[in-house]
Amino acid sequence: MKNFTKDSLIKKGKTFNRNFVNCLSGYKSLNLIGSINTENGETNLAPFSQVFHIGANPPTVGVLFRPHSVERHTLENILQNGCFTLNHVTEDFYKKAHQCSARWAKSEFEATGLEEEYLNDFKAPFVKLSPLKIACVLKDEITLEVNDTVLIIASIEEVWVDANTVEEDGFIALDKVGSLTVSGLDSYHSTNKLERLPYAKPFKKAE
Amino acid sequence: MKNFTKDSLIKKGKTFNRNFVNCLSGYKSLNLIGSINTENGETNLAPFSQVFHIGANPPTVGVLFRPHSVERHTLENILQNGCFTLNHVTEDFYKKAHQCSARWAKSEFEATGLEEEYLNDFKAPFVKLSPLKIACVLKDEITLEVNDTVLIIASIEEVWVDANTVEEDGFIALDKVGSLTVSGLDSYHSTNKLERLPYAKPFKKAE
Repeated sequence: MKNFTKDSLIKKGKTFNRNFVNCLSGYKSLNLIGSINTENGETNLAPFSQVFHIGANPPTVGVLFRPHSVERHTLENILQNGCFTLNHVTEDFYKKAHQCSARWAKSEFEATGLEEEYLNDFKAPFVKLSPLKIACVLKDEITLEVNDTVLIIASIEEVWVDANTVEEDGFIALDKVGSLTVSGLDSYHSTNKLERLPYAKPFKKAE
Repeated sequence: MKNFTKDSLIKKGKTFNRNFVNCLSGYKSLNLIGSINTENGETNLAPFSQVFHIGANPPTVGVLFRPHSVERHTLENILQNGCFTLNHVTEDFYKKAHQCSARWAKSEFEATGLEEEYLNDFKAPFVKLSPLKIACVLKDEITLEVNDTVLIIASIEEVWVDANTVEEDGFIALDKVGSLTVSGLDSYHSTNKLERLPYAKPFKKAE
């Protein structure tokens, strides 16, 4: 095994360091975040791999925003009107999802052809094609001093998903939903379920 | 598509709500966190799906700890001596990794038979079997008011990984490393790489 230190990574240059470090935490979630500027009505759609679970009761998610990036349109919209949508991405439209990260002069919905959808009077737009859609409302905003990234904390208000993918105990079979996962900045992966494991107890010997 | 609201989820009971909401953010990373209490020398190993990328320069990761859970041993060790390790998990030992979440009276290394390894005088133990090992040092601790989860922010000091899995631009092929991904609380998945997509530009039409 090769040993990489913080200093040796910096010597390899910015691009190498960025690609390498972005892979270290492991696989990441993939969501398209839909938002709207309610002053001018302009919608925004951006791919994020920095959405993570914060708590189940109340249902809470976090989104981490890089400082000074194009994705700040999304952040500005969320701070302006307090709501956004999460939309899982499948193999059918991950290329269009990726294309939403370009610096378009118009709405990424229009630019990529991903159709907007509005559900139950929620202000922010959903992605019609997405098989798992979540309506989120802003609860808190924290700037992480370590590097000025902004952590948005939001409540989950409503979810739309095919009932056939939801198991009796509430588990959602994301492989059946078709959700993809991401590694690094630009690598897309489908998954194979190995198994669900039962709650671990000390007296049960590891096999 | 079925519509689930926050209220309808609560009516379905705690277990349903917990399983359902834990799946919503999408696929999660899987790491075993190795730590040590340097006062009594006892080591600890626990599986985490709440490790995420915070920044590449300086290399920074975040770990979210649930309030009042068994995993607090890990948190106590990190706060006691400021260091821990991240260890990716493969198909070869995910059952043992899962078993580390049980309430053992002794070190999870000993209980599950996963061998400890110490590298370059780093205080915290690594998992010998793991193909991607990371030495982390505590930088900051933030309690999220929304639900008292604790966000640990740490710098990445050193990494060990097979050089053959690292591409020229720094990207680490996690599918070759063999890293798994997790959904919900207990579902383990391997991955199939679809492709890496080039940096998106507006003039390049989405296919």
